[in-house]
Amino acid sequence: MISREKHDRMANAIRFLSMDAVEKANSGHPGLPMGAADIATVLFTRFLSFDPKTPSWPNRDRFVLSAGHGSMLLYSLLYLTGYEDITIDEIKNFRQLGARTAGHPEYGHAAGIETTTGPLGQGIANAVGMALAERKLRDEFGADLMEHYTYVIAGDGCLMEGISQEAIALAGHLKLNKLIVFWDDNNISIDGPISIADSTDQHARFRACQWHTIAVDGHDPDAIAAAIEEAQKSDKPTMIACKTTIGFGAPNKAGTHKVHGSPLGAEEIAATRKALNWESEAFAVPSDVLDAWRLAGLRSTKAHKEWDARLEKTEAEKKAQFVRRFAGELESGLDPAISAYKKKLAETKPNPATRKASEDALEVINGVLLETIGGSADLTGSNNTKTSQTKSITPTDFSGRYIHYGVREHGMAAAMNGMALHGGLIPYSGGFLIFSDYCRPSIRLAALMGIRVIHVLTHDSIGLGEDGPTHQPVEHMAALRAIPNLLVFRPADATETAEVWQLALESHNRPSAIALTRQNLMPVRLEYEEENLSARGAYDLVSASDAKVTIFASGSEIEIAVKAQQALSAKGISTRVVSVPCVELFAEQPEAYQKAVIGNSPVKIAVEAGIRQGWDHFIGSDGIFVGMSSFGASGPYKELYKHFGITPEAVVAAAEAKLG
Amino acid sequence: MISREKHDRMANAIRFLSMDAVEKANSGHPGLPMGAADIATVLFTRFLSFDPKTPSWPNRDRFVLSAGHGSMLLYSLLYLTGYEDITIDEIKNFRQLGARTAGHPEYGHAAGIETTTGPLGQGIANAVGMALAERKLRDEFGADLMEHYTYVIAGDGCLMEGISQEAIALAGHLKLNKLIVFWDDNNISIDGPISIADSTDQHARFRACQWHTIAVDGHDPDAIAAAIEEAQKSDKPTMIACKTTIGFGAPNKAGTHKVHGSPLGAEEIAATRKALNWESEAFAVPSDVLDAWRLAGLRSTKAHKEWDARLEKTEAEKKAQFVRRFAGELESGLDPAISAYKKKLAETKPNPATRKASEDALEVINGVLLETIGGSADLTGSNNTKTSQTKSITPTDFSGRYIHYGVREHGMAAAMNGMALHGGLIPYSGGFLIFSDYCRPSIRLAALMGIRVIHVLTHDSIGLGEDGPTHQPVEHMAALRAIPNLLVFRPADATETAEVWQLALESHNRPSAIALTRQNLMPVRLEYEEENLSARGAYDLVSASDAKVTIFASGSEIEIAVKAQQALSAKGISTRVVSVPCVELFAEQPEAYQKAVIGNSPVKIAVEAGIRQGWDHFIGSDGIFVGMSSFGASGPYKELYKHFGITPEAVVAAAEAKLG
Repeated sequence: MISREKHDRMANAIRFLSMDAVEKANSGHPGLPMGAADIATVLFTRFLSFDPKTPSWPNRDRFVLSAGHGSMLLYSLLYLTGYEDITIDEIKNFRQLGARTAGHPEYGHAAGIETTTGPLGQGIANAVGMALAERKLRDEFGADLMEHYTYVIAGDGCLMEGISQEAIALAGHLKLNKLIVFWDDNNISIDGPISIADSTDQHARFRACQWHTIAVDGHDPDAIAAAIEEAQKSDKPTMIACKTTIGFGAPNKAGTHKVHGSPLGAEEIAATRKALNWESEAFAVPSDVLDAWRLAGLRSTKAHKEWDARLEKTEAEKKAQFVRRFAGELESGLDPAISAYKKKLAETKPNPATRKASEDALEVINGVLLETIGGSADLTGSNNTKTSQTKSITPTDFSGRYIHYGVREHGMAAAMNGMALHGGLIPYSGGFLIFSDYCRPSIRLAALMGIRVIHVLTHDSIGLGEDGPTHQPVEHMAALRAIPNLLVFRPADATETAEVWQLALESHNRPSAIALTRQNLMPVRLEYEEENLSARGAYDLVSASDAKVTIFASGSEIEIAVKAQQALSAKGISTRVVSVPCVELFAEQPEAYQKAVIGNSPVKIAVEAGIRQGWDHFIGSDGIFVGMSSFGASGPYKELYKHFGITPEAVVAAAEAKLG
Repeated sequence: MISREKHDRMANAIRFLSMDAVEKANSGHPGLPMGAADIATVLFTRFLSFDPKTPSWPNRDRFVLSAGHGSMLLYSLLYLTGYEDITIDEIKNFRQLGARTAGHPEYGHAAGIETTTGPLGQGIANAVGMALAERKLRDEFGADLMEHYTYVIAGDGCLMEGISQEAIALAGHLKLNKLIVFWDDNNISIDGPISIADSTDQHARFRACQWHTIAVDGHDPDAIAAAIEEAQKSDKPTMIACKTTIGFGAPNKAGTHKVHGSPLGAEEIAATRKALNWESEAFAVPSDVLDAWRLAGLRSTKAHKEWDARLEKTEAEKKAQFVRRFAGELESGLDPAISAYKKKLAETKPNPATRKASEDALEVINGVLLETIGGSADLTGSNNTKTSQTKSITPTDFSGRYIHYGVREHGMAAAMNGMALHGGLIPYSGGFLIFSDYCRPSIRLAALMGIRVIHVLTHDSIGLGEDGPTHQPVEHMAALRAIPNLLVFRPADATETAEVWQLALESHNRPSAIALTRQNLMPVRLEYEEENLSARGAYDLVSASDAKVTIFASGSEIEIAVKAQQALSAKGISTRVVSVPCVELFAEQPEAYQKAVIGNSPVKIAVEAGIRQGWDHFIGSDGIFVGMSSFGASGPYKELYKHFGITPEAVVAAAEAKLG
């Protein structure tokens, strides 16, 4: 049992590390770490199950600092509890180039950082995904291997963001009762008191979403502990409102927005040292305090060992499945299954919409991989993301593998990030390509973190037809391709669709977005190829020696390119077609291959029912682009293609005009 | 007084127009119009103040169909009440190319469509902006000229989207009590019953956000009317939960998700005709019913005339101000004020961060234009969007011109759209460029609608420094430039900042995004020029005859380009610098000008602290790009620029290497 005095000194260690690091960096947010230090101290010294020596222990409790600007809280905790990645030198290098201690917590920079946070609302929504993953895996593997809590510290900013409300509603619906959120209720945001922008009754809003709520004094360790105990017993997720003073301890600035995002200054830090009776110099933690923290870091060693023993005793196949999945490895049966499926496609040459082709590919994949977990933001029948293996998950039955996310694209994408971060699952979504805008911040974070989430984005162009320009992506391929470290796929037929699914699954360290059509497409890959040609990003679909014209295209426009090629060839104009299912993978090919694919035809044409941006890389700034330069329109899709001049005839005419 | 029988027949006219139009188009959503017909009939025949003959009457009530997929509800209402734009032929041409009756309601296609809806949650958030505008203008011009309600029909999908929760919380906070939202509580979404994805107590959630709520039978006209009367008396915004049957009247499909988004089919339509005792053929409305609807359309003629008379009697200056602002015209004093300010800049040559330069420009603008209404998503001090003229608006005092939106970027952007659509105001935001992702769907809709909203997006590159990659836009300039009809500005110094503000204000028919730095920038426009050079999109900042090197750059990288130019010139290498404050405006220049600006230097270099995508248009695919190709990092910004190789030295080295 930790005495109140010891608790205070332990919490103050966080406070001083935080304010001293911010001061040294001359940049950062001391207010939250100082205000939430008591909450974190109670959590980490009495409740959190974690092992700093083996941070990746799958059954650890997850801790998410959703209010990521308070990063020094997390870094202090990691240093104090003995994570090797965060040394005192890292703390001293807070916010410096090359340090693990970035301005906001960056997943991958150091063990113990469970997710990248900072963009507000993302962390709490990640945590919903983590809690969902835990619940699902508990159902699948049993509580012996998987049963843990997910804790979150969220601020007012997190709760004002819409994404958090999507995630909160989903968590309440699914009764994720091992999710416990501390709301750092400090009444302050950057602009001043919360009351200038918000009058929400947070308790009532959480309860409306089927959460349990508790209110405590966020500086009373025993009250915090009692609240956590109560939360652990709830059959609902719990929000613990912790009334705190931002910048607690700073005699002149605490409780004001001045302490939120700026260094306190030497004078105020000195005054705080006095007020909190802290005699150590900057970055020095008294040895009794550090010892107490390091002991806290050893609290779960025994639980971890017992878990190891249980894993050892687990039936071999189940154990192998568990270990493989937490290592992020795929089943060896996947590649043969996809090869067999591609063979079948080469024989039957079907012409489905690629959204349907994706469903067919998933039917193969979901039969081999038990870790895929699908879903849709209320467009299941349109996205074709549900297969025979993926029964729906319900609040009382997590044996399924499909999540009805509701009309909550942003919450969905962030929860998927949380599931991928948790481990053991490969989440894939369902949505319209246009609505990638609704969840773009979470897609970006997946790319920044380098995690495997797969976004199925159907209805990928004006080809969706009558729903009109509000639903027709025009700029979205370009906008997604702009995100670093994201694979953006646009397959041309069923075979390419199977290939890009394989690539997405094999991409352990980055997310994928797969753009798929609503409309049927003719098959263009007519012969079976063992090689995954889409892996090259772009490849010769129709070769021609000494080509006068090269047509680059993706997805549904490959059909147009092939028809144009046939017409030009019939006129004696030698023409190639290059399929470009993934610009990013092409850019990673050897330079010689890239040069050969781009080639040197006098006429280069790109065809994509989206904007030109990015295609100049293939065709040069003097190349011909057949695509969109405005928003779309409402009408039957074949008429739209004619209206916007995206046809084989237009491609042929443009080529002939250029050849003169 | 309309009898119940007449009400039912009037409502059924909506139902049959809707189901027949969807059937003929073989595409669309009959369920909502049929379910919400009673609500709409009560609203339009007894409450809504509107004038189909002068649809732009500034003091009309606003009606927003947030559940835009139910567009046939709106088109039916516009046809029935006598808006000239929507003829019966337009109804017959529902969802056909060129029709005003697009799949989703498109602002500008027909009078009476107050906003473009379809992407869920946007409409209700637009309506919050409309109600805010009304409240603000009522304060400014008095209730004689401005006092009206804003009504919304929203579905479950709207309420599940996070954007709606942001907007709802803002409306509750600001006590926008003339905002009345009908929730079409039909228990159905695309995937099936709402209960598969949501367990929210909507009443409690609205009340937690300081709304008044009422529950009624959505098929009981008198109950609906009583609820509206109650709502009109509330001192809070009101949500009226209307329990409805989706596809009301269809004997076999009503109440199921089958009726949501597909034609009913001839058989079911015939059965519905029978069930509702409707003998008219498709698209024929019985004359007594049509007459009753047309009469309803004349209900507010008298109120409109009285309003006209009040406007006539209004004091001349106030009247002129009102009329000018609703015409969207600027004050004639604006241009001279900006010229004078530019002269001062040429004399004083300050080196502020462009965010500060933006504040200084706004100080001039806000002094001339009373219609600008600023704000920030809780980053006021960082965005520099508050000037001496813009006191904060509070729930009890709307005399200010500044909105503390809270940490709600998406709700902010959508509310701004609503204010611009309402008329009388020019809204500008404050946010970080990185968070343009959070509000991208609303920015896109502003571009699609062609409305004047101005997004101030500060901290526009790795130049923000220590906050790190979660906060450093890398792909955002490219991603924003990808949106059609959006002007994306990135000014290089205080003078360009003033110029792009002028351009944004003058752009009546499109939105603007202004990317601004956190860090100070040296002045590069040293001489006063009367002409707004930024209006050309790109222009010679430093000319050189027979230039061997041309450097294109924007914003903070102009400083780097100029320093590189000086170094190259010192070495005897003739070098130009082209400033590119707006790619879109450049693309609209005469071809000869564009060719001249791009020129034909053997070495072309683009410098922007973002990704290359889009720059090939200037430099060709073999040009040199000095910028980012990955996410950023946390550290002091000068170190980051060095780390990522975005320096004058790097530009010089690249140019020399290319020249050989």
